[in-house]
Amino acid sequence: MVESWVNSAERIGADLHLELSGPGGRRAALTRALREAVRGGRLAPGTRLPPYRSLAADLGIARNTVADAYAELVAEGWLTARQGAGTRVAERAEPLRPNARVPKKAPFRARGPRHDLRTGTPDASAFPRSAWLASYRRALQQAPHEAFGPGDPAGRLELREALTEYLARVRGVRTHPARIVVCSGFGHALRLLFGPNGAARGAGGTGDGRGGGRPGGRGTGGGGGNAVLRGPLAVEAYGLGFHRELLAAAGVRTVPLPLDEHGARVDLLGRERAVLLTPAHQFPTGGPLHAERRTAVIDWARARDAVVLEDDYDGEFRYDRKPVGAIQGLDPERVIHVGSVSKSLSPALRLGWMVLPERYVGDVLAAKGEREAWASVLDQRSLADFIVRGSYDRHVRRMRQRYRSRRDRLAAELAVHAPHVEVTGVAAGLHAVLRLPPGTERATVEAAAWRGVALDGLAEFRHPATDMAVSDGLVVGYAAPSEAAYGAALDALCGVLPAE
Amino acid sequence: MVESWVNSAERIGADLHLELSGPGGRRAALTRALREAVRGGRLAPGTRLPPYRSLAADLGIARNTVADAYAELVAEGWLTARQGAGTRVAERAEPLRPNARVPKKAPFRARGPRHDLRTGTPDASAFPRSAWLASYRRALQQAPHEAFGPGDPAGRLELREALTEYLARVRGVRTHPARIVVCSGFGHALRLLFGPNGAARGAGGTGDGRGGGRPGGRGTGGGGGNAVLRGPLAVEAYGLGFHRELLAAAGVRTVPLPLDEHGARVDLLGRERAVLLTPAHQFPTGGPLHAERRTAVIDWARARDAVVLEDDYDGEFRYDRKPVGAIQGLDPERVIHVGSVSKSLSPALRLGWMVLPERYVGDVLAAKGEREAWASVLDQRSLADFIVRGSYDRHVRRMRQRYRSRRDRLAAELAVHAPHVEVTGVAAGLHAVLRLPPGTERATVEAAAWRGVALDGLAEFRHPATDMAVSDGLVVGYAAPSEAAYGAALDALCGVLPAE
Repeated sequence: MVESWVNSAERIGADLHLELSGPGGRRAALTRALREAVRGGRLAPGTRLPPYRSLAADLGIARNTVADAYAELVAEGWLTARQGAGTRVAERAEPLRPNARVPKKAPFRARGPRHDLRTGTPDASAFPRSAWLASYRRALQQAPHEAFGPGDPAGRLELREALTEYLARVRGVRTHPARIVVCSGFGHALRLLFGPNGAARGAGGTGDGRGGGRPGGRGTGGGGGNAVLRGPLAVEAYGLGFHRELLAAAGVRTVPLPLDEHGARVDLLGRERAVLLTPAHQFPTGGPLHAERRTAVIDWARARDAVVLEDDYDGEFRYDRKPVGAIQGLDPERVIHVGSVSKSLSPALRLGWMVLPERYVGDVLAAKGEREAWASVLDQRSLADFIVRGSYDRHVRRMRQRYRSRRDRLAAELAVHAPHVEVTGVAAGLHAVLRLPPGTERATVEAAAWRGVALDGLAEFRHPATDMAVSDGLVVGYAAPSEAAYGAALDALCGVLPAE
Repeated sequence: MVESWVNSAERIGADLHLELSGPGGRRAALTRALREAVRGGRLAPGTRLPPYRSLAADLGIARNTVADAYAELVAEGWLTARQGAGTRVAERAEPLRPNARVPKKAPFRARGPRHDLRTGTPDASAFPRSAWLASYRRALQQAPHEAFGPGDPAGRLELREALTEYLARVRGVRTHPARIVVCSGFGHALRLLFGPNGAARGAGGTGDGRGGGRPGGRGTGGGGGNAVLRGPLAVEAYGLGFHRELLAAAGVRTVPLPLDEHGARVDLLGRERAVLLTPAHQFPTGGPLHAERRTAVIDWARARDAVVLEDDYDGEFRYDRKPVGAIQGLDPERVIHVGSVSKSLSPALRLGWMVLPERYVGDVLAAKGEREAWASVLDQRSLADFIVRGSYDRHVRRMRQRYRSRRDRLAAELAVHAPHVEVTGVAAGLHAVLRLPPGTERATVEAAAWRGVALDGLAEFRHPATDMAVSDGLVVGYAAPSEAAYGAALDALCGVLPAE
């Protein structure tokens, strides 16, 4: 088998790989290879081929061999040759039409439904393009060379410093850059904390020391075993199914804590080693954790040598004057505080952070590996610049006003068109829960889907093992539509709500 | 507990979170809260505080209360007040000095050793900043709004289209955008293929159905169980320890294949279900897989219903005229081809791709989750633009010339200063292997470290279970130093090589 590399880049714009193998002489092999390149789409219609002599020199074959191969392909219609225009790929040559199309299982819809009132996404039309580009430009142009080498798994120091200042100022988080580890978002944080597979450490071997499938079967303390934390993990009875599935895949048993008007019943915490909470704004039901429970859960963690995992997913978005700060500020040694830019800027950036008690820092870094394998260094530097220059504050403030007005508008529309449907939870965040008459949730969600309105019912978020009384409700994400689309989405929503 | 939010952003630049809790009246609480904010560094020295009336309005307290609190803190020295300059944080106020410093376990060294001849990193000083910024600008400015929403886990279509064309043209890969899945690099690809934890699918539950710790204990076929592929996995007897550890953490048993002058002994493949190879340029020993073995491993995969995992880590970097194309081109239904920009552009970008046989696409997408959780959408769009505009080709060509001259220079220096030390492997890639006299490897690596030269011996890459004869050698990564630093690194290297 003879294989060759065409370096006649000045003619076809770049390298082209040709395999001069198979039966027959070199002329036959070259003819076949070029034909395949055209038929397979590797040489696009209109592409100018290199002159005989360049290609011959590159391939180390006679000039005539190339000339003959070209002539044959011109004869077959794959190439065209015109005086002064050289030899080109014929325009009618068809590109590859493989059998493989979009796979059957395609859960993702890039365009989305007609009216998108699902949770979890900010207004994609509001991304601050100019300010972000300015930060990216500075981040790139001013980067030291080492920024383009392997990355520190803790994340860029400049980002950790910016986050330390920002989180202290805005969320009351008390920390230090050495306690922050950058990640790709909350899901990545869960994998790093609980996943045997997030960790590629230890001396290798053949899968010993996992044991994650046996609840409670791991070693004690944060240092042993393959996971930073071990189950069972208490979670709120309503929460993201995605998180529960991710934990289940990591072999972590989750124990649901009922919710009442003061938030999660942390008084029911027992022998669990960790609890996952959304203290600022319970997701999805929408209330803050009561002040006494905030203190109580910290007391529990201290007494049990346990840890509170704080998902501060929308902590910046409070629309009244009395938000609660991060629970992390109450005891930085008992709380792992996790945040991201997914709600504040965009989930497309894939940037988040973990603020860790000192004792977990080494284990989380070990779980990340010796080098940064996830978060782009340039994006990290850009976010640092974006925060330090005040662009992040400005954007959050602008979005706070926008989402507040959307929430107000939702409430106003309901007051007119469906006064019996109550908006629950505090004025905060990117979503609201509408209480529905008992037994009407499923039919309402289905009616909404039928009318092109995508949203979820409360049932979607319910832990399968909770014994809380079922209550019917819709979780309305009011952030996702653009400003222009929001009115129509609200109209459509009001049109499907059950009658009194 | 009273908690408040200071929105006087026009004065202190952004939001500041104050907790007006604890004993005493509001004046005492505010004084304490501001003092803590200064002491803890949340209010930086020189920061101008909001006027009494703004802060009073924001907190819903009397103006005099704020004035009194300010006066007290001025008296204590935390704040300064000057006519016309307002009230500011005193310059001598000390920021937080936490006990927590850089954790003890810190495997990462951002600055690196004096002479860095480790493998795995391109020349960080050669990142094409201007061309990349131009692509990023276009990618950002021309992005449709939906690009800032949740991402398609397959990756952006524009990137998959660009990769399809590029990989066909340069690496002989035959594929289609619907068969490509974007990832963060080779490690991420391994996790997606083998990790029970890369997958967050199924109906939730409590950790059932893992079984990854029992070799061969998974379900048959690609669709069942938690992993896309199952072990045992054949690997080359010399390879990246990082990959072996990652697989071990996922419970995958690896079986070493000996290497000879024709590459991996694929004739020894048996009942394994998959084999991981570096066919273009064996890592680290440096030879290509022989043409007959390329065919043989495909025949094996067909006969056994197995799959070849092709790590095409430096496939673009061949310096002679006869490189080998990707083995994927021989049978797209039997080879998973994985590449990334880590060697060609920078490991700081965290972008890679998997080219999949059709039957694995659905499972890999399911393992990635419903939304893109890893690769930044803007970076994906930038890389697509960078490829389509020819910037990627231009950069690779420039780096090929640079690395080729470095390899030549290494060989020339050795010919003069250590003629008994042989450079093995083909002229390709970002590293070379120097054969050493038996028994001298460890001492040489230690002597190098002593002289500030960081490099690895072959032992570092050896599979612990292989019975191949040990041969001593140094793996010299000649890409990492800047052009300016390379000469000194070579001098230092020659100074530590063993005598004949």
